[in-house]
Amino acid sequence: MPPFKLVSREHQREDTVIDLGSCTIGGEQLLIIAGPCAVESKEQVMTTAEGLKNIGVQVMRGGAYKPRTSPYSFHGLREEGLKILAEAAQIYDLMVITEVVDVRDLDLVSHYSHIIQIGSRNMQNFTLLSEVGLSNKPVLLKRGFAATIEEWLLAAEYVISAGNKQVILCERGIRTFETYTRNTLDISAVSALKTLSHLPVIVDPSHATGRKEMVPSVSKASIAAGADGLMIEVHPKPEEALCDGFQSLNIEEMSFLKLELEKVALAVNRKIL
Amino acid sequence: MPPFKLVSREHQREDTVIDLGSCTIGGEQLLIIAGPCAVESKEQVMTTAEGLKNIGVQVMRGGAYKPRTSPYSFHGLREEGLKILAEAAQIYDLMVITEVVDVRDLDLVSHYSHIIQIGSRNMQNFTLLSEVGLSNKPVLLKRGFAATIEEWLLAAEYVISAGNKQVILCERGIRTFETYTRNTLDISAVSALKTLSHLPVIVDPSHATGRKEMVPSVSKASIAAGADGLMIEVHPKPEEALCDGFQSLNIEEMSFLKLELEKVALAVNRKIL
Amino acid sequence: MPPFKLVSREHQREDTVIDLGSCTIGGEQLLIIAGPCAVESKEQVMTTAEGLKNIGVQVMRGGAYKPRTSPYSFHGLREEGLKILAEAAQIYDLMVITEVVDVRDLDLVSHYSHIIQIGSRNMQNFTLLSEVGLSNKPVLLKRGFAATIEEWLLAAEYVISAGNKQVILCERGIRTFETYTRNTLDISAVSALKTLSHLPVIVDPSHATGRKEMVPSVSKASIAAGADGLMIEVHPKPEEALCDGFQSLNIEEMSFLKLELEKVALAVNRKIL
Amino acid sequence: MPPFKLVSREHQREDTVIDLGSCTIGGEQLLIIAGPCAVESKEQVMTTAEGLKNIGVQVMRGGAYKPRTSPYSFHGLREEGLKILAEAAQIYDLMVITEVVDVRDLDLVSHYSHIIQIGSRNMQNFTLLSEVGLSNKPVLLKRGFAATIEEWLLAAEYVISAGNKQVILCERGIRTFETYTRNTLDISAVSALKTLSHLPVIVDPSHATGRKEMVPSVSKASIAAGADGLMIEVHPKPEEALCDGFQSLNIEEMSFLKLELEKVALAVNRKIL
Repeated sequence: MPPFKLVSREHQREDTVIDLGSCTIGGEQLLIIAGPCAVESKEQVMTTAEGLKNIGVQVMRGGAYKPRTSPYSFHGLREEGLKILAEAAQIYDLMVITEVVDVRDLDLVSHYSHIIQIGSRNMQNFTLLSEVGLSNKPVLLKRGFAATIEEWLLAAEYVISAGNKQVILCERGIRTFETYTRNTLDISAVSALKTLSHLPVIVDPSHATGRKEMVPSVSKASIAAGADGLMIEVHPKPEEALCDGFQSLNIEEMSFLKLELEKVALAVNRKIL
Repeated sequence: MPPFKLVSREHQREDTVIDLGSCTIGGEQLLIIAGPCAVESKEQVMTTAEGLKNIGVQVMRGGAYKPRTSPYSFHGLREEGLKILAEAAQIYDLMVITEVVDVRDLDLVSHYSHIIQIGSRNMQNFTLLSEVGLSNKPVLLKRGFAATIEEWLLAAEYVISAGNKQVILCERGIRTFETYTRNTLDISAVSALKTLSHLPVIVDPSHATGRKEMVPSVSKASIAAGADGLMIEVHPKPEEALCDGFQSLNIEEMSFLKLELEKVALAVNRKIL
Repeated sequence: MPPFKLVSREHQREDTVIDLGSCTIGGEQLLIIAGPCAVESKEQVMTTAEGLKNIGVQVMRGGAYKPRTSPYSFHGLREEGLKILAEAAQIYDLMVITEVVDVRDLDLVSHYSHIIQIGSRNMQNFTLLSEVGLSNKPVLLKRGFAATIEEWLLAAEYVISAGNKQVILCERGIRTFETYTRNTLDISAVSALKTLSHLPVIVDPSHATGRKEMVPSVSKASIAAGADGLMIEVHPKPEEALCDGFQSLNIEEMSFLKLELEKVALAVNRKIL
Repeated sequence: MPPFKLVSREHQREDTVIDLGSCTIGGEQLLIIAGPCAVESKEQVMTTAEGLKNIGVQVMRGGAYKPRTSPYSFHGLREEGLKILAEAAQIYDLMVITEVVDVRDLDLVSHYSHIIQIGSRNMQNFTLLSEVGLSNKPVLLKRGFAATIEEWLLAAEYVISAGNKQVILCERGIRTFETYTRNTLDISAVSALKTLSHLPVIVDPSHATGRKEMVPSVSKASIAAGADGLMIEVHPKPEEALCDGFQSLNIEEMSFLKLELEKVALAVNRKIL
C-alpha cells in the first residue's frame, strides 16, 4: 500500500473533474492556461488578456508574488498585481491563476484569483499546504524541482486531508545533470500520476525546458501522454519581459500552437475548446 | 560554436534519412523497432518474428550479447543468438538490430545484423565507436544513462568522423533521483536533438520507464514530440522472459499500441507503415 | 562577479565569527551540536541534555515543529516542545537550536531558542528567510536538498540583506541517484563555501548519510575538510526514537566520536572544547 | 543478501592488502599516487618523476591512452607514452599506473605498467573487466560517474570472479546537478565500501572537484574518512598541461599537501611513508 490515501486511485476510482466555472479540468476537455511569468504593468496584462481571449484561452496565469533566487531580483507588484489580474479577468471574461508564497497573503490572493498556485519551491511548505487545504478555491500544486512522485502526492494529500479536494497537479520539470534545458521534463510522471491518483495533471513546458523553441514539441508530447492540460508562458513582447522572456511564446505563436495541439488532442480522444 | 561538427545542423541543414532497405528512418515515415530484450531460444524468436510481421513491424530487436550489471546474470546466446535472429529475419522478411559490446565481435555481429546497436553503457566506449565508424551498417547509438546531450552528440561525432554517416540516436532515459521509473525519459531531448543535429532520433520507452503499463503513454508522447520512431520491448510471453519481462508488451498489446500511434503520427504529419 | 554580495569573501575578507554566549562558531574552536531529531517527551530531552552536558557538548538540537513528508506523520510537540527544550537548557546550562517552519511561529521559537534553524525544505522559503533576517538570533541555514551552492548563498543573502549577519551554513547532503545513503554528502561544499564566503560552515552527517554507522567516518571527514562544526543526531535510546532512530548515535557513541574528532581537529589546527 | 559475493565483507572478513612491491595498499600505510593527467613528453614525465621521487611519492600516474569526450581532442601518445612511463619508473625507482581503454591493448599496457587502471567511462565495459580479471597485475577500478555503489562493486566482482583478486576501488566523484565542481565527491562511499567490501579504497580529489584549490580540503577529508590512499593530479607546469591543468597541483603544492596529510593520517591511526 502506498503511503498516501485520499489522493490515491484506490480511494477513488473515477477521475476527479474540477469545475472552474466556464470550464472544467480533468474531463474530456483539455485546459490551456497561458500568460506571463510576472505581472509587470496594467498595459502588459490587458494586452495579454485580450490576445488570449481572442485565441480562445480561458485561464490566464500571471505572478504578483514572485519567489526569486536572489533578494535583489524583481519580486512582483504584489497586491497591485493582483488587482490588475482581477480587472483583466473581468473585462475579458477570463479566469486567473496566481501564486501565493506567504500564508499571510492567502486571503488576499484568494480574493482576487480563481485558482491558487503553489509554486515548485513551496511544494513542501506544509504550512501553506494546510492553509490552502482550508480554502474553497482550486489549488494548482507544482511539483518540487527535486521531489519524487511520492513526495508530490503526499503534498497533495496535505491539501486534501485539510478539506480541499480541488487539487490540480502540475509537472514542471525536475533537476538533473543535463544543462541544455532549464529542467528535465519528466513526461513519465503523467502516466505515473494517472495510475496512482485520480487527480487532474497538467504540464508546464515553459519552466520545464526554459527555451521557447522547445515548447511546441514538449506541449504536444504532454497532451499525447495523457495530460489534462498545459500551463504555457505567453508574453505580448517576450523580448521585453522582466523575467523568463526566453521561454515565453508571443500571442501569435500561442495561437499557432493551440491549433497544433487540437490535432494531437483529437488523436488521443480529447478536445480543446 | 558547439564542439561538434559533422553531426550538427550547421554542417547539414536537411534531415539525414537513412535507407534501411525496405524502409527508411528520418523521413516522413516513422520506424517501429520491436522485439525481446534477449534472444532466449529459437522458438521465442520465431514466435516474436511471426507476430511482429503480422502486425506490420519491419525491424526486430533482440540481444545476443547482453551487458549485465552482475557477472552472474544471463549474458546472451552469443553467436547462436545471432544465427537465430538472422534465420528469423530471412523467414519473416524482417530486418534485425542487435547490440555489439566487444570490438572483437564486430565483424560477426555485422555479418548477421542489419543495424548495429551501441548500448547505453558503451556510449563512451570510444574504441567501439571508432570501429563501427568503419562499418557500412547503420548504427543505433543509445544515449548513455548519465550522458548530456552534448556528450551524446560527440559520441555520434566519433562514428561519423570515422566514416559512417548512418547514425540513429536513441533516447532511453537518464538516471535521476526519481525511483518510480527505471530511468527518467528526457522527452525534451527529441526537440533538442532536432535543433542541434540532422540525425534521426528514436525513443526507447521500455528501458526509459521500466514499466509496461507506461509504455503506451510515453510512446505517444515521443511521436508527438517529433521522434522518428520507437524501439519497444515485445515478448511473446513477457511473464516468462529471462530479462526485463515487466517492461515488455506482448504481441497483442503491441498491435493495439501501433494503431494508437498511427493516429498520433497523423496529428503531427507523419506516417506509420 | 558572483550574484551574491554581502555573503561573499570579496565583501568581507576575514571569517565571520558568531558569538553564541558560552562559545563561538567560525573561529579556531569547533562547535558540536547534538541531540534528537524530535522532542518527544520531557524525560527524553532531560536525559539527552544531561548526557550531552557530561560529555562537553554545548549546544543541543531538538525539533518541536517537524516538517514531515506525510500529513499523517508525527509533527512535533510544538510550543510544549519548545518549553521542554528551554527548561533543559536552563537546568543543564546548554544552548538550544530548533527549527521554525511557519513565519507565524517565529516570535515563539525565538523566545525559547538560542539559535534558529531553517530546514532544508525551507531554504527557499523567502518569506521565512526575510523574517529571520529581522531577528537578532543566529540563524542556521540548512542547504536545500537539491540546491546549488550559489542558490544556498543567495538564500543566506536574503537573511543578511534583511539585517541579520549571524548566519551559519549547514551542509546536509544533496539528492542524487545513489540510494545506499539517504542523501549524498557534498564534502566539497565545505571548501567551496570557504572560498566564496566568510560565513561559518557546519555539516550534518546524520541526515546526509541516514546511517548511524557512517556518521563517524563522515564527521571526521568534515572536520578534516575545514568545517567549523557538526550537527549530529543523538538520542538516548535510538531504537525507540519517533523519527530517524536509525541515523542517531547514543550518548556513549557520541562521547567516543568526540574523542576521535578532537584528534582530527588538532591535525588541522582546530580545537574542540 | 547483496547481489555480490567475492567482493563482499561476508565473503572475506579481513581487509585485502595488495602487495605492490615496494609498498602495499589496504593496510596501515596509505598510498599516494600522483602524476599528470596525460603523458605529453619525455621531459614532462622525467621532471614529474624526479619531483615525485624527491617528495617520497612511490606511484606515478600518467595517461598514455586518453578516453576523451570529443574525437578531436588529444588522445594520448599511446605506446610511446607507455615507454616513457616505464623508462621514468626505472630511472627513478617508481611504480606506474596507467589506463587501458581497449582490450586489444591490454597486453601492451600490462607489459609497461605496474597497476592497470580502468577509467570511469569503462567501469561497465564488461569485456575489459573480464580481461583484466585474467591479468596478474593489480587493477585500479574507478567508479563510473553515474554508477551506484552496488553497480561498482558488481563491476569489481567481474574482475575477481575472472580470477584477479587485486582490485583497488577509486572514488572520483559522481554526476549531480551541482555545477560548481566538476563532479560531486561521494565521501560517504568510503565508509560504505569499507562496510560492504574488503577491498582497498582510494579517492581521486582532482577529478572529483576539477579545481586545484579544493584538492587539499578534499584530500584531507578522504584520509579522515578512512580511505586507503589518494590519486592526485600533479604536473610540473599545470598552466601548460594539455589536459586538466586547472585541477593539477605542481610539485611544491603536492609536497606541502603531503605534509598536511601525514598529520591527518596520524589522527586516524594511519601512516604515510
